[in-house]
Amino acid sequence: MRDLDKQETYLVDRRGMAVELRDLAGSGPTPQGPLPEPYGLLAYGEAWWVGRLLGLPEWTEEGTQFLLQGGYDLGAALALGLVAETGRARLERLELPPSPLNPYRYLRYVLLAMGKEEVLLEVDQALLEERRRLGPEVPLEENPAKFLAYTLLERTPLFYAPDHPGLQEAAQALLARVGKSLSLVPPPTALEFFLTGLEARHEQGDPLAAVLLGSGAGVALAKEILESRVDTVAELAPPEAGPLAQALALWYRLAWTAYYLALLYGVDPGDPEVLLRLREAAS
Amino acid sequence: MRDLDKQETYLVDRRGMAVELRDLAGSGPTPQGPLPEPYGLLAYGEAWWVGRLLGLPEWTEEGTQFLLQGGYDLGAALALGLVAETGRARLERLELPPSPLNPYRYLRYVLLAMGKEEVLLEVDQALLEERRRLGPEVPLEENPAKFLAYTLLERTPLFYAPDHPGLQEAAQALLARVGKSLSLVPPPTALEFFLTGLEARHEQGDPLAAVLLGSGAGVALAKEILESRVDTVAELAPPEAGPLAQALALWYRLAWTAYYLALLYGVDPGDPEVLLRLREAAS
Repeated sequence: MRDLDKQETYLVDRRGMAVELRDLAGSGPTPQGPLPEPYGLLAYGEAWWVGRLLGLPEWTEEGTQFLLQGGYDLGAALALGLVAETGRARLERLELPPSPLNPYRYLRYVLLAMGKEEVLLEVDQALLEERRRLGPEVPLEENPAKFLAYTLLERTPLFYAPDHPGLQEAAQALLARVGKSLSLVPPPTALEFFLTGLEARHEQGDPLAAVLLGSGAGVALAKEILESRVDTVAELAPPEAGPLAQALALWYRLAWTAYYLALLYGVDPGDPEVLLRLREAAS
Repeated sequence: MRDLDKQETYLVDRRGMAVELRDLAGSGPTPQGPLPEPYGLLAYGEAWWVGRLLGLPEWTEEGTQFLLQGGYDLGAALALGLVAETGRARLERLELPPSPLNPYRYLRYVLLAMGKEEVLLEVDQALLEERRRLGPEVPLEENPAKFLAYTLLERTPLFYAPDHPGLQEAAQALLARVGKSLSLVPPPTALEFFLTGLEARHEQGDPLAAVLLGSGAGVALAKEILESRVDTVAELAPPEAGPLAQALALWYRLAWTAYYLALLYGVDPGDPEVLLRLREAAS
């Protein structure tokens, strides 16, 4: 098995994703000062999670209409942009070059444009706090991301985050794009799914590793159900912070975990060029 | 392998789910005449899909506030019901005894309460049309649900329905509750997920069977990506109808598929009593 505390393990990181991960907080473009209220937000592709996190309406007739074109939307963002141009609201477009870490950057841009510097500050502080214990220089026994990566190795992760909208799907996306790994999330009727869907078939295929994100009553009940049905259960408690900073901190910890998982599988955690081609085909 | 055209295969259906499936169209409670507009809709547990299908706002200050208590919500529906009681809108509650087929019944109730009999009629006609070719009396070679069940046997289904909100998650829930089978759905960034998440690990575990629901450009691009990455691809085209009838027709075909899959695995397609206990614990 590869050793995450040895330098040679990091040779497969040919594009230097460790640096991108380390320098994430504060990265990305900055809007030209606060933009007028009220806000509407259409978010596609790599930006989709921002729409769920902020809970803004999709459309506004006045103020600022954000259009986050995250690629891979088969022209939907372009078409809606044409519609938005005919409205009275100011149209604020943003499209970043592909990166699995872009959700943070789209979120940062919108928070700044909304004049919510104090919320962004809390998010950034949470990420910096996480970073202190997640980087390659922190050895396994003190590094929860390295530890979780070993737990997920040769298992299929099952993410459940009932208290953080979209976090489980964002985790699934990270595991795929960075960790090059298949993972599962439950449908909205999660508890019934855990009771029935894992009963008959879980002895087949890869063993499942449930990853519970959060600390509420839903997580506690899920743990009780899952303990006898999956190979292992990992719990990730969020830091003490507001809901947005909590969600981003958990997401960032999983981004590092996905990075280490790619290294353990011996594959490049960076995105293959094929994603650039997909963006051309599906934008 | 069990034979879906032989009577003895149906002995495991101890609660008679075939009858419930056959008689689904037109079943469920009926509201007392049309209720006043505008409408707000909160939908929990087994009713969650109705909220996504109808796209109504969650809350209304006037008219009718629907509260569909589908169980397993850890008290959220109860708490919001107390809030709704203090509002000016008429509060219309509905909670049905547990059944994996309840999404149809909740939808039917709300459509009737909204005075949308013609939409319900189209949905019911689509279900009756599907039923003609999906029941146990229709032999395998003329029965697409039996055929799909054999395709999914000993494989892990991966559902993708880009044009029908919530259908892929509703399919995942059906496969679990009726088929007692684990299945996957992609995150909102589905095409990237297919490109990266299935690359490194799909040779391990159960072989994947992609089930594409719909007929748009997203389905075509997904098919192109998936063909080289999964064990088999099944395409389910919807009938010629409005979007709601299309979604329900596909869902109904998958309900029959999940039923046959349970029979092929030799397990009861009905819900175990454990779900009633969960409802008590989590309502």
